[in-house]
Amino acid sequence: MNGAQSLIRTLVDSGVDVCFSNPGTSEMHFVAALDAVPEMRGVLALFEGSVTGAADGYGRMADRPAATLLHLGPGMANGLANLHNARRAHTPIVNVIGDHATYHKGFDAPLESDVDALSGWTKGWTRWSSDPGAVGQDAADAVAAAMSPPGQIANLVLPADVSWGDGGVAVAGATAPAPSTVDDQAVNAVAKVLGSGEPTIVLLGHGATRERGLLAASRIAQATGAKLFAETFPARIERGAGLPPIERLGYLAEQVQWQFTDIKHLVLVGAKAPVSFFAYPGKPSGLVPEGCQVHVLAELGSDVPGALESVADLVAAQEKPVLAEASRPELPAGELTPQNWAPVIGALLPEGAIVSDEANTSGLMIPMTTAGAPRHDVLTLTGGAIGQGLPVAVGAAVAAPDRPVVCLQADGSAMYTISALWTMARENLNVTTVLINNGAYAILRMELQRVGAEGAGPKANDLLDLSRPDLDFVSIAQGMGVAASRATTAEELAEQFSRALAEPGPHLIEAMVPSLI
Amino acid sequence: MNGAQSLIRTLVDSGVDVCFSNPGTSEMHFVAALDAVPEMRGVLALFEGSVTGAADGYGRMADRPAATLLHLGPGMANGLANLHNARRAHTPIVNVIGDHATYHKGFDAPLESDVDALSGWTKGWTRWSSDPGAVGQDAADAVAAAMSPPGQIANLVLPADVSWGDGGVAVAGATAPAPSTVDDQAVNAVAKVLGSGEPTIVLLGHGATRERGLLAASRIAQATGAKLFAETFPARIERGAGLPPIERLGYLAEQVQWQFTDIKHLVLVGAKAPVSFFAYPGKPSGLVPEGCQVHVLAELGSDVPGALESVADLVAAQEKPVLAEASRPELPAGELTPQNWAPVIGALLPEGAIVSDEANTSGLMIPMTTAGAPRHDVLTLTGGAIGQGLPVAVGAAVAAPDRPVVCLQADGSAMYTISALWTMARENLNVTTVLINNGAYAILRMELQRVGAEGAGPKANDLLDLSRPDLDFVSIAQGMGVAASRATTAEELAEQFSRALAEPGPHLIEAMVPSLI
Repeated sequence: MNGAQSLIRTLVDSGVDVCFSNPGTSEMHFVAALDAVPEMRGVLALFEGSVTGAADGYGRMADRPAATLLHLGPGMANGLANLHNARRAHTPIVNVIGDHATYHKGFDAPLESDVDALSGWTKGWTRWSSDPGAVGQDAADAVAAAMSPPGQIANLVLPADVSWGDGGVAVAGATAPAPSTVDDQAVNAVAKVLGSGEPTIVLLGHGATRERGLLAASRIAQATGAKLFAETFPARIERGAGLPPIERLGYLAEQVQWQFTDIKHLVLVGAKAPVSFFAYPGKPSGLVPEGCQVHVLAELGSDVPGALESVADLVAAQEKPVLAEASRPELPAGELTPQNWAPVIGALLPEGAIVSDEANTSGLMIPMTTAGAPRHDVLTLTGGAIGQGLPVAVGAAVAAPDRPVVCLQADGSAMYTISALWTMARENLNVTTVLINNGAYAILRMELQRVGAEGAGPKANDLLDLSRPDLDFVSIAQGMGVAASRATTAEELAEQFSRALAEPGPHLIEAMVPSLI
Repeated sequence: MNGAQSLIRTLVDSGVDVCFSNPGTSEMHFVAALDAVPEMRGVLALFEGSVTGAADGYGRMADRPAATLLHLGPGMANGLANLHNARRAHTPIVNVIGDHATYHKGFDAPLESDVDALSGWTKGWTRWSSDPGAVGQDAADAVAAAMSPPGQIANLVLPADVSWGDGGVAVAGATAPAPSTVDDQAVNAVAKVLGSGEPTIVLLGHGATRERGLLAASRIAQATGAKLFAETFPARIERGAGLPPIERLGYLAEQVQWQFTDIKHLVLVGAKAPVSFFAYPGKPSGLVPEGCQVHVLAELGSDVPGALESVADLVAAQEKPVLAEASRPELPAGELTPQNWAPVIGALLPEGAIVSDEANTSGLMIPMTTAGAPRHDVLTLTGGAIGQGLPVAVGAAVAAPDRPVVCLQADGSAMYTISALWTMARENLNVTTVLINNGAYAILRMELQRVGAEGAGPKANDLLDLSRPDLDFVSIAQGMGVAASRATTAEELAEQFSRALAEPGPHLIEAMVPSLI
């Protein structure tokens, strides 16, 4: 068994059986070894940003890592932006970064670069594999590291000679540590705050936005009058009819300040105290109002739902959670507007959908219009690095092949990783992409005003404009093998969305929605 | 004048008047300031890999830097792969990397990341601007650093509050140091080697593959019998009728070993001793044969053409260079094959063309078929990070608006930065892209065999296959506003290529060439 074979065998035995890949010459022995381990599925993406974004979507839905296969430093570089989002989402991922043979590195061949600088940027776990006999153990350690609560990126650098060398030893499955239990002191302290009667917000972060945490949090809110919010960009939030409805903190600092009006206590549950996404002249960076005390119930990586249940047992023993009732908006009619496309999604979102949401400004109404839709998951843009939506949809669909995936995708962001459409087609994934074409970086039009930039004229506005020429996403999607259609009215959007959901395989609907701004 | 205005004014006064841009909120004051400095041209690209690749192409043709505008760490991350190619090409580039306001960084907002790790990866010059009153000087220093021979990447990190703060001071143009003169000792030593009569190769690297260096090198070869080669992947090589024809070193180690048969001396002129692009089991990494002595005539960053002229004056005072005669292949006929598309390019390449060559395996015949074409420049994939061809064509066309740009582009590589087509359309650039669609990562099919990977079966081969579904580049290009057509015969390719060159603006021709392998 060579090193590559022992690596893949160990990954599979550790529960990692999908490898999103964009290989090169230094990875050819790894590629060849895929045929020796039938349980490992290789999924080709045409750009590393799609590879890593797919691994992010997969990990968020599967609660275990996918592997990636990346071609040396430059290949990893192309995948970094979506690794940034994955880092902020605490998604477990095992990156296998092929590198030159150990003895070749000193020759400074053209693709040589400082891989440590890039892997360090992910702030995860990194190891250079140096021996074919040890790479199996390295792989098991990488999986364990990736799965360490709350989840992180594990980078395993695989020199070509370690990959092709003989003496590989597959290692029995990796085991990850359990999340740490939250101690009684923190639980009691928060129970006391909640019992004080003072205005309190419980902020639900990583691990708290899934069913268990939401149910416990809802009981707490019912019993104590505390307000619940989810963090602005949850990695994964479960919602819809039958689950407690939880509002998210706003993206704009002004929204958060409004949501925090008169609050005296902020209880953090797997979340950080909110900060402004960007800095604005004369506006604060931290968004916790003066005089508001911050209490940490559960740190990231601890047993977050358990901590909420412990608090609920103290302060809300008899309380039942409040659940969203099933309700759908009516199907709107007429030309598409920024206001009427979201109700179409709310009216038709299928049971069990996974929503990959990168609709940005165009998606502001989506949380409202889907609040009473059948139960679904939403995956959001955790790190702000655009180009996430399509790849995350790929990964979610691979992780959950029996569930419909709906990708709500802004136009400008789509272009970063547009080739993810091709992987949807190749793998025949059940992804329905609603591409909101408003012909602009609309969010930047808003931000140009908000930052108070003076003197912006035609040259500035030109850099925020995506027309001239117009992007034709129907043509682009068809060119990548994805069935596509264009909707200019709400009726067309409804008809095309329903049809796409009913048919297997990927579809793209280009919704021609005018820019708000 | 705010910081951003002083920065842009200083760049313009330093000769940097194009900024390839993909901005975000933290760059809005920079964007607004573009209207205050009319001489600065902002060029929007829809992905940072296109931004940096365009800056690379621009710098190679203009011999001065373009600026880029990148959105924090994740935006820079997206641009790294083409910065890697630019680093290997020694292209002067000034990256303006927008960042959070200085006081905001400690809040770890979602887009916060370790920008130093990324800028360090480029192995160039980096400065964090910290004061609106100093950012003008920082910009001048960045240009000077970028222009320092042989050219490098200069990273200027621009926090938002430095951009929007008052008190900016524009600084008079930057001046870069001249290349160092090569001392007589090196010149004399090489002249002696060349006079020995022993088999000698003169390897022409950065700075030696332009007209002055080529003419001197040709005189040397004529007088001494030395063989001339250009390095495998020159940043820019001038060639065609009326210039000395110079063969490039092969991509494959076996080719180089053949080219170096019986050689006793290797003279390096702005080049490094050749190494294998990748490691292969049982094969050497360094490609200089045993018993061959290596002599350095001119280090990178020294006066490379001057050194060649000094040697020529010693050993070839009366010699004239040998120039390629004008000659064209005949136009071939019939279904397109791996062999017959390149003669079409050779037969029709226009006078003064700039060829952005990322045709990879499909392009092996191009150097031969264009050797006697009218004088042209070729820009090659210096760092091996694919996705260079289209963006470099964008930058070259912006730098040289009066010259036709021909982009020879492999299919797999095209998908990394495909949105560069949109920028070609927006700027109405005279770029004719010949997209060789062979439906495969053909180079990897070859490499899978060359690395001796055993056991590769259907799963391995699936990861090298770009069909299922077929990519339709006509549809993709039209979706981005570029006129496109498909050629399946040599006659169609000739007709479409001629027409595209005759019409203004960008065109893409999808040449359906079967894979060699």
